[in-house]
Amino acid sequence: MTTPPSTRMAAEIAEQPEAARRTLEHLLPQRAELRAAHAGRRRVLMVARGSSDNAATYGRYLLEVAAGVPAGLAAPSVATHYGARLDLSDTLVVSVSQSGATAEIVETQDWARRCGAATVAVTNVGDSPLAAEADVALVTRAGAELAVPATKTYLTQVLALAVLADALGADLEASLATVPAAVADLLGTDVTEAARALAEADEVVVSGRGLLLGTALETALKLEETCLRPVRGYSYADLRHGPISVVTHGVLAVLVAAADGPLAAPMVELAGDLRGRGARILGIGGTTAFAGQCDVHLPGPDLPEVVAPIGSIVPAQLTIERLARDLGLDPDNPRGLAKVTRTDTSAG
Amino acid sequence: MTTPPSTRMAAEIAEQPEAARRTLEHLLPQRAELRAAHAGRRRVLMVARGSSDNAATYGRYLLEVAAGVPAGLAAPSVATHYGARLDLSDTLVVSVSQSGATAEIVETQDWARRCGAATVAVTNVGDSPLAAEADVALVTRAGAELAVPATKTYLTQVLALAVLADALGADLEASLATVPAAVADLLGTDVTEAARALAEADEVVVSGRGLLLGTALETALKLEETCLRPVRGYSYADLRHGPISVVTHGVLAVLVAAADGPLAAPMVELAGDLRGRGARILGIGGTTAFAGQCDVHLPGPDLPEVVAPIGSIVPAQLTIERLARDLGLDPDNPRGLAKVTRTDTSAG
Repeated sequence: MTTPPSTRMAAEIAEQPEAARRTLEHLLPQRAELRAAHAGRRRVLMVARGSSDNAATYGRYLLEVAAGVPAGLAAPSVATHYGARLDLSDTLVVSVSQSGATAEIVETQDWARRCGAATVAVTNVGDSPLAAEADVALVTRAGAELAVPATKTYLTQVLALAVLADALGADLEASLATVPAAVADLLGTDVTEAARALAEADEVVVSGRGLLLGTALETALKLEETCLRPVRGYSYADLRHGPISVVTHGVLAVLVAAADGPLAAPMVELAGDLRGRGARILGIGGTTAFAGQCDVHLPGPDLPEVVAPIGSIVPAQLTIERLARDLGLDPDNPRGLAKVTRTDTSAG
Repeated sequence: MTTPPSTRMAAEIAEQPEAARRTLEHLLPQRAELRAAHAGRRRVLMVARGSSDNAATYGRYLLEVAAGVPAGLAAPSVATHYGARLDLSDTLVVSVSQSGATAEIVETQDWARRCGAATVAVTNVGDSPLAAEADVALVTRAGAELAVPATKTYLTQVLALAVLADALGADLEASLATVPAAVADLLGTDVTEAARALAEADEVVVSGRGLLLGTALETALKLEETCLRPVRGYSYADLRHGPISVVTHGVLAVLVAAADGPLAAPMVELAGDLRGRGARILGIGGTTAFAGQCDVHLPGPDLPEVVAPIGSIVPAQLTIERLARDLGLDPDNPRGLAKVTRTDTSAG
């Protein structure tokens, strides 16, 4: 039973190896500029919402783990509604927005500059306000994205943040060069069984940890917005601190893992614990032992943990696109969503 | 139809005015010590999990908004699993743990000190490892908490973080003095209708924003762990960036708001939008206009927004305790939870 992948979302997923190659080619030469913007500053603060926030979550871990740079996520309302006066003269603020036009993000970047921060914009639109007003604009080369769910713009955002981490001290260049091929290898993944497991579940939770947390949160968000069903994304620790008590028969746990690194073993343990509570497990990536704990398993990218999140989202994208079609929904235009989301920015 | 409030959870909720009074009395004199620990440092980083993480979310906003101190939440696995080497010599690290014995939090505090941070522990157990190893220990005076769901230990954690913010430049002392009475005023709230609305809902989402975001997340966590039903907590912005598309008839949206401040008006708008999508609204606090948008409304504390979260959790606690009993569950001992949660800390 094969449904033809005629959707824009499917086409845009398939464009990702080329989008990654173009983006790398354009951004790697900007590393000196990024180092100059960071010079004399001690930390990085990310500004983002929605899918971009999930990309930023990866960027935050990567900067701390692989580049040794303290990093965190900004709370935009501190800028847009409270107008807090913070001294950010020790900070590089990285704003991430596909369109570069989300008013809240543009406004927060402007506030950060007034607070003394240097600014980097990560956006897919070169002539956007966000790019125009940043000290350094990292313009991803995803090309126009027509389906509402972000796929290639998300993947290239994640890639841009890896380039930033490489510029600030992580040693990623050799791994990054293998990303386009690793992404291409995943495009033929058979997601029939994975989509069926999701369709049959009463309840879906998604979890991942550390560098892969952002991938898990993005998987949950995309499942929810594309397939219009409530899906909760949790960090491994947040899941253990309470919500695990509601995991039982009928729950499908989607777990995203890396094949190496210090969290590979704990993810095997988590899969076993959730199975013990009666959940079915849909695993993406991870070790052989992890795959052995999964009811349904999709291979992850052939990439080390530090850059795995650039590819780990691909099996999830394929599964979600397929699930939407299986459910009779249009993956390209889920109900109630616009491409640019407006969070109100007016102080009231 | 009245069920007698004979649970430990109910008793511990009722002890909160006294717990708050004792905690304030003990912690206010430590402000000079806190200022000394922060002297020469530029930012605050919070370390916490579960309910304590929700308290820390408030602390983070409060420090930025009311004290002008850049603040953020640490990712403990960066310390415990990745062993990242960060320079935290410009940072005050505040670890929050009811028991002071959660291995992951103790280990992360130890890592922070080795990275050069000054350390503050917020805990309810004075002779805990977390308190013993911190530069400053803020020991809350909640007394022993026997019910599994944190109530008075959470409220006094939130209070301790407000004392910290006051020490670092927020001007909260006069407002803090009114907290015990404001909490006492809420104890008689009739939560019959609120508990019924929750029992009748197919699906529950919880949202709040800015200073009240932590209260919303704590309400969601407590609803989930005490009543064993899946409940999602979202920031206002995260809700708008996707999940709002699954809000429809049968959804109950629990919204927590303050009666003043720049987010009071946006919360009225959010309530209206969610109603327009068919959701029922259970509101806590907020303005008169906000109450007018709610199907069921519980009064919030008579406190300004900066300290409102110390009291805003009380109507939620009362409702959750009542709902658990209405559902035939034991609020004191929900299935599958232990008082000290272990997140594994071994590198694997």
